[in-house]
Amino acid sequence: MQPGEIQPGSTVELDRCDPNDTSGFTRPERDAQLELQRLRGKLQRLQELLYAGHQHRVLIVLQGMDTSGKDGTIRRVFEGVNPQSVRVARFGPPTVPELDHDFLWRIHPQVPAKGEIVIFNRSHYEDVLIARVRKLVPKETLHHRYREINGFERMLVEEGTSILKFYLHIDFREQGRRLRARLDDPSKHWKFSVSDLIDRSLWTKYIKAYNEALERTSTEWAPWIVVPANHKWYRDLTVLRSIVGTLTRFRMQFPPLAPEARTFLRGRPWGKGKLPSPVD
Amino acid sequence: MQPGEIQPGSTVELDRCDPNDTSGFTRPERDAQLELQRLRGKLQRLQELLYAGHQHRVLIVLQGMDTSGKDGTIRRVFEGVNPQSVRVARFGPPTVPELDHDFLWRIHPQVPAKGEIVIFNRSHYEDVLIARVRKLVPKETLHHRYREINGFERMLVEEGTSILKFYLHIDFREQGRRLRARLDDPSKHWKFSVSDLIDRSLWTKYIKAYNEALERTSTEWAPWIVVPANHKWYRDLTVLRSIVGTLTRFRMQFPPLAPEARTFLRGRPWGKGKLPSPVD
Repeated sequence: MQPGEIQPGSTVELDRCDPNDTSGFTRPERDAQLELQRLRGKLQRLQELLYAGHQHRVLIVLQGMDTSGKDGTIRRVFEGVNPQSVRVARFGPPTVPELDHDFLWRIHPQVPAKGEIVIFNRSHYEDVLIARVRKLVPKETLHHRYREINGFERMLVEEGTSILKFYLHIDFREQGRRLRARLDDPSKHWKFSVSDLIDRSLWTKYIKAYNEALERTSTEWAPWIVVPANHKWYRDLTVLRSIVGTLTRFRMQFPPLAPEARTFLRGRPWGKGKLPSPVD
Repeated sequence: MQPGEIQPGSTVELDRCDPNDTSGFTRPERDAQLELQRLRGKLQRLQELLYAGHQHRVLIVLQGMDTSGKDGTIRRVFEGVNPQSVRVARFGPPTVPELDHDFLWRIHPQVPAKGEIVIFNRSHYEDVLIARVRKLVPKETLHHRYREINGFERMLVEEGTSILKFYLHIDFREQGRRLRARLDDPSKHWKFSVSDLIDRSLWTKYIKAYNEALERTSTEWAPWIVVPANHKWYRDLTVLRSIVGTLTRFRMQFPPLAPEARTFLRGRPWGKGKLPSPVD
């Protein structure tokens, strides 16, 4: 199975997808760093246009096993971007009031507004992943949820949101290396929790859950993108490229003066460079 | 009147405070850029500690006339900071449901959580500024509101939030230059609105409103800081220094392994470098 965008209807077998893939980069250290720099600059300019234009909404969904690099991707891809129109929504274990509602109830208020990029660090997909692995809901519910997720995302897209869904793909050995690194480095101890080890012991079940979820929710309007993530630089580059590509296709321009501003300025002295003086 | 922190109980006369002040920088272009770089690096490290430690909450309030540089400060001070724990809350004209509540109702849900820095781009202070200038409420209401603001902020501080309130100080001529620059540059037309000109004509009234508000709400727990802002580099530097100073005084450390993680790892083979294998 090739990494990249999953065609709707195709079979997903993550075990047969290479998490070490770094297609097209033979001198990663140099080429990749330069390319990352260039793309980050581009993202900054595009994001200013997005904010100014106040037309498009962008939703980025990040999923992946523990240590797959969701936090790192957010930091590395969005460093330098104006925090005023980028927002991160984290979805941890649901609270009691959240559990008292449908699973999309806590998700919907967090979707992006016009001009905004919102990054979901985990998402509604946990409700078909951990919910399946830990048997929190009957199997039938899962099948409803795939359909409900597709419907919800379709609505968002039809109403003007662009959705980019990234699965950060690492393998079992790489997760072991990263967990060990967390234990070896006191400045990373705060990231370590027992539940990471429990989830690690359920790796095979999680892969099965991801295979099914990615298969059932890769749609024409919101396909999943499988990102080889054993190499952090390649992961960052792939995600950044995809976001920059999407924003570029919007063909955005800075909006002109508002009509009422034009009318207001026309014929007045400060229309030609002078501005009104203070009254009082 | 000197720029900087306003001592509680002292008189505020913004007209007598120099917006061109750049104390201590004789070679601004070079020294200031280096210092900005250094402080941004420091902010990034402190913010990681803040996020990891999950103890302190930081609220930054930005106020100032149109074009005083609220947006620019946010972009320049927080570029490079992890968007995961920095959030910007903008407060525009209140909506109908917001007007149907007390003026702090829309503010309270936006205050920072533990580990978070939240920047208020405009704030509850609009309700004693524009509300006063445009006579939206009777004078008596203003006097209640100063007290209510002080009480609200005191509660936040007593419950563990640090509040930094910056007034970005430009003068009337500088605003004229900046508005004209917006009209001259098509890529900045989207920032221009007729209401900027109306507010400009009310400059003197706004200064009076700010004088009173800053005087009445500079408290021991949350003093205002007047930032000379005619020079953008000096404005950025002053704000950045103040934030870095506050975070430094927290004396934060990376938290150790959670007690349950330590217990769990003790005596188990993966405590010594091995991790559990997948089941199934």
